[in-house]
Amino acid sequence: MELLKQRILKDGVLKEGNILKVDSFLNHQLDITLLNEIGKELKSRFKDKKITKILTIEASGIAIASIAAQHFNVPVLFAKKAKSKNLDGDLYTSEVHSFTYKKDYTITVSKKFLNSDDSILIIDDFLAAGNALLGLIDVANQSKCNVAGIGIVIEKGFQEGGNTIRNLGYQLESLAILDDISDRTIKFK
Amino acid sequence: MELLKQRILKDGVLKEGNILKVDSFLNHQLDITLLNEIGKELKSRFKDKKITKILTIEASGIAIASIAAQHFNVPVLFAKKAKSKNLDGDLYTSEVHSFTYKKDYTITVSKKFLNSDDSILIIDDFLAAGNALLGLIDVANQSKCNVAGIGIVIEKGFQEGGNTIRNLGYQLESLAILDDISDRTIKFK
Repeated sequence: MELLKQRILKDGVLKEGNILKVDSFLNHQLDITLLNEIGKELKSRFKDKKITKILTIEASGIAIASIAAQHFNVPVLFAKKAKSKNLDGDLYTSEVHSFTYKKDYTITVSKKFLNSDDSILIIDDFLAAGNALLGLIDVANQSKCNVAGIGIVIEKGFQEGGNTIRNLGYQLESLAILDDISDRTIKFK
Repeated sequence: MELLKQRILKDGVLKEGNILKVDSFLNHQLDITLLNEIGKELKSRFKDKKITKILTIEASGIAIASIAAQHFNVPVLFAKKAKSKNLDGDLYTSEVHSFTYKKDYTITVSKKFLNSDDSILIIDDFLAAGNALLGLIDVANQSKCNVAGIGIVIEKGFQEGGNTIRNLGYQLESLAILDDISDRTIKFK
């Protein structure tokens, strides 16, 4: 997606440890106009798929999923990190290891909101090692819903997550795939 | 806001401890069509105010703020809970005590994205004791931006947060104000 790549080149900042910061438009401050273009693009990538719900994960996925949902006319469901006192006991859960934060956490989704009648699109901002995404797929599989596709805004193409997910047979669409950034320049695959 | 109140009456669930669960449409599963009506209503409540940015807090505020932002044509900025490794050191911070989770946490906003040129609308899903909101106001004051208004979806009118904030002189607009729910029935003020 050219508009997104141009924005990453303009406002993305590379940091030590292969980190690309896009906090000026994607995951701290949010450019809602850009998110709307991302939503349109995701709709075009999955236009032939039956989607009944969008599944994402807090916090950065929520804005992208919510704006995109307007193009699919479906509700959003976001997985929570760690068990919340205000959630019912009847939860799908999955354990996720975060390399970014060097810790494990539990994601939870209420069983009430996902079942075998659903055909979902999973959306998230970043795909790197793929652990969060595998947690969401695990939750989806527990619910016996269909995973119709996976939409990612930025995939780190030099990490294994993308291959792992594609090898499982899912239609994974990443709107920008970063090539090796270890030389501190932003390039796309 | 009548549509919201009807939805709370239809799908809200009262739990022990004066908790109103609205996780089927507002803070776990998200009814994006309803959020769009909420966004329109917030625009109408603040139509004469200059708004340059919407400030909210993760996670439940993000969807509401993002959909509402489309009616204001401004970016969203969401405060993060606890310090993230991927955020710059240059942060506004404020300490917040959560009664719901019985713990303290730190909210952070990058200084890059809020300054004295901004005139912001603060948006959140719930207002009860008001601690999270006071944290957001604290962050806003540190940045010397103008707080043009505060929009809340559901205010617990039997807790002190609403009075506290109004007594500080802010235009606080709550789209549904719950009356005492200790008898386990939902009523509005």
